[in-house]
Amino acid sequence: MEYHDQLGLSRERFADLAEQFHDDSYRGRAYRRLPDYRKAVEKGTVLIAGTVVRGFPKIPRCLVLDEGIPQHFNREIAVEEKLNGYNVRVARIEGDVLAFTRSGIVCPFTTHKVRRLVDCEAFFDRHPDRMLCGEMVGPENPYTTADCYDVDSIAFRAFDIRDRESGESLPVEDRRAACEDLEIPQVDLFGVYEPAEAVEATPEIIDDLDSRGREGIVMKTVDGGQQLKYTTSAANQGDLAFAFSLPFDYGRDFSFRRLIREGFQSVEFADSEVERRQRAHGVGESLLVPMADAIEAVDEGERLGERHTVRAEPRVVDALLDHFHEQSLSLDIEQDRRIEGERVLTFSKRIQRSTDKIDSYLDGTIVKE
Amino acid sequence: MEYHDQLGLSRERFADLAEQFHDDSYRGRAYRRLPDYRKAVEKGTVLIAGTVVRGFPKIPRCLVLDEGIPQHFNREIAVEEKLNGYNVRVARIEGDVLAFTRSGIVCPFTTHKVRRLVDCEAFFDRHPDRMLCGEMVGPENPYTTADCYDVDSIAFRAFDIRDRESGESLPVEDRRAACEDLEIPQVDLFGVYEPAEAVEATPEIIDDLDSRGREGIVMKTVDGGQQLKYTTSAANQGDLAFAFSLPFDYGRDFSFRRLIREGFQSVEFADSEVERRQRAHGVGESLLVPMADAIEAVDEGERLGERHTVRAEPRVVDALLDHFHEQSLSLDIEQDRRIEGERVLTFSKRIQRSTDKIDSYLDGTIVKE
Repeated sequence: MEYHDQLGLSRERFADLAEQFHDDSYRGRAYRRLPDYRKAVEKGTVLIAGTVVRGFPKIPRCLVLDEGIPQHFNREIAVEEKLNGYNVRVARIEGDVLAFTRSGIVCPFTTHKVRRLVDCEAFFDRHPDRMLCGEMVGPENPYTTADCYDVDSIAFRAFDIRDRESGESLPVEDRRAACEDLEIPQVDLFGVYEPAEAVEATPEIIDDLDSRGREGIVMKTVDGGQQLKYTTSAANQGDLAFAFSLPFDYGRDFSFRRLIREGFQSVEFADSEVERRQRAHGVGESLLVPMADAIEAVDEGERLGERHTVRAEPRVVDALLDHFHEQSLSLDIEQDRRIEGERVLTFSKRIQRSTDKIDSYLDGTIVKE
Repeated sequence: MEYHDQLGLSRERFADLAEQFHDDSYRGRAYRRLPDYRKAVEKGTVLIAGTVVRGFPKIPRCLVLDEGIPQHFNREIAVEEKLNGYNVRVARIEGDVLAFTRSGIVCPFTTHKVRRLVDCEAFFDRHPDRMLCGEMVGPENPYTTADCYDVDSIAFRAFDIRDRESGESLPVEDRRAACEDLEIPQVDLFGVYEPAEAVEATPEIIDDLDSRGREGIVMKTVDGGQQLKYTTSAANQGDLAFAFSLPFDYGRDFSFRRLIREGFQSVEFADSEVERRQRAHGVGESLLVPMADAIEAVDEGERLGERHTVRAEPRVVDALLDHFHEQSLSLDIEQDRRIEGERVLTFSKRIQRSTDKIDSYLDGTIVKE
């Protein structure tokens, strides 16, 4: 079957889209990936070895649970935890298990870790045409920094099993049973509810997750067809803190959206005046403290960056560094140790724009606005 | 002299620019005005009765006084107060004194007020080719809301006297003397300093202004040729509160810039940890409290708007309402009283986008981001 058939597109439509795909390769195997959102096909969709690995869809969000849930759903939904890590799709291509990031890149580090963390061969023997979708969480990974999961280094948590080509999900119950059978760790399920029940139940779930510094929930119809997400104040404020630690790279729209979420949550969750003030103080600290820290760091001659630590066999860390090098990322190595035969590397991805802008304003550059 | 000569442009260059001017009129007198910033000519420049009323230039800003002042200035500067009101240029055209707003609109209300507040005829008898530039401040005006100046209704404060055509400023000393002679109220002068002295003096001036809820300072070379501004935390946070009371209209870039200012000020003013936390709490409250109030207001069926009060003879208020009507502004009248022969009108300029967006999210609309 040709790619356009697998994607459900006409030959003409696919020809237009094909120009948007980027050429890439992993260990000598060429593939093409769609780096942005498009109408016809999900971001991160990959064409590889004659087959399609469908991108993971963007999950819509509501700002108000009370109205958003019944607006979006008219049947039973499962409420599961949304984790703060990075999204990965695992597929077996010509006998090789590969881990694809959200934007469709085969990550050598993640590929290695997933093979260790999950019995992938057993999974794909049972589900050859599917992909296993999940979140990589934990403090030692090359992409995200959240550290609230009682994970020492890195872990995988499944949240979906999809048809590799069409992207169609297994029903929630079947997926959870399949993962349990194969001892694949998965995200927590809080319950299955009618929409009206979910409106009652979700604020408490969110409050509890918030108190533990967790990110939020994904609600989905039990057939897996429709999804909706909602995040905690802890996640919103954590994102703001991240954004304003690199203000000129992430500050504007990214932070505006999270501020708006806090506003709607404060109203829906009926904050008392004291609670609203506390939330406001949290918001303000998330913005100002990391920003002032960043300005002071640049003032002292430091470069800004995103710091990550990875731990793996030396050859895996080498492969990751080569991979980042191919992507033209500039890394500063901050610490490089061997512990029990593994290489534990702390590096910082240089973020140029915020460093340069802050430097220039500190030098007295004038703003014309 | 033709317009292009007065503006110092070639005939060809002016012909290109002329298309950007908007046609307008005031009491049967036609004029053209430049509503946006352009390279060649200042925003708000007006062509009227064969003469030019040059726009007031945008004043550049520094984020760091310490480096910004010596970068920008190499000679003596006067430091004056920057007021939080609206900018107005007053000129005499064919014998009529007219008040132009920043974007070059003749405002009937402001024109009336300026004629009462300032001895305009005496001014223009002495300075026929100049314009008087100043800020309208006080709680009763149709454009701004700051109320920190011990002004009951509305007042004028001069800060510049410029050549009407070229825009060239009188030296600060001459301007201040000219205003004093004619008893024209003017902005406070804090002192005249060498750049290095200004670096020492300005943080204290800013701290004092901040403690009184004032907006900031304008520094200018004593010949009036170059300007630079800097604002207080009170102004930054006041702007944030305004922006987030109408979050989808003003929230994004407007607020981002002000957050950045707070970050640099916190570092330059060497906030202690406690002071930084206090500033952060102020920032957070400026954002969250007005936003939550706006969401609650829309939830209760209110329309959002910018509320203003004006007080004047009934015919002047009528003229202002006609003027807004011509500009297609939608007003909700909230209170309409007569006090000692004057009409005291409180109205709200409808702000549609924030009202609609909040309403839609409250109804459960999904965000795809």
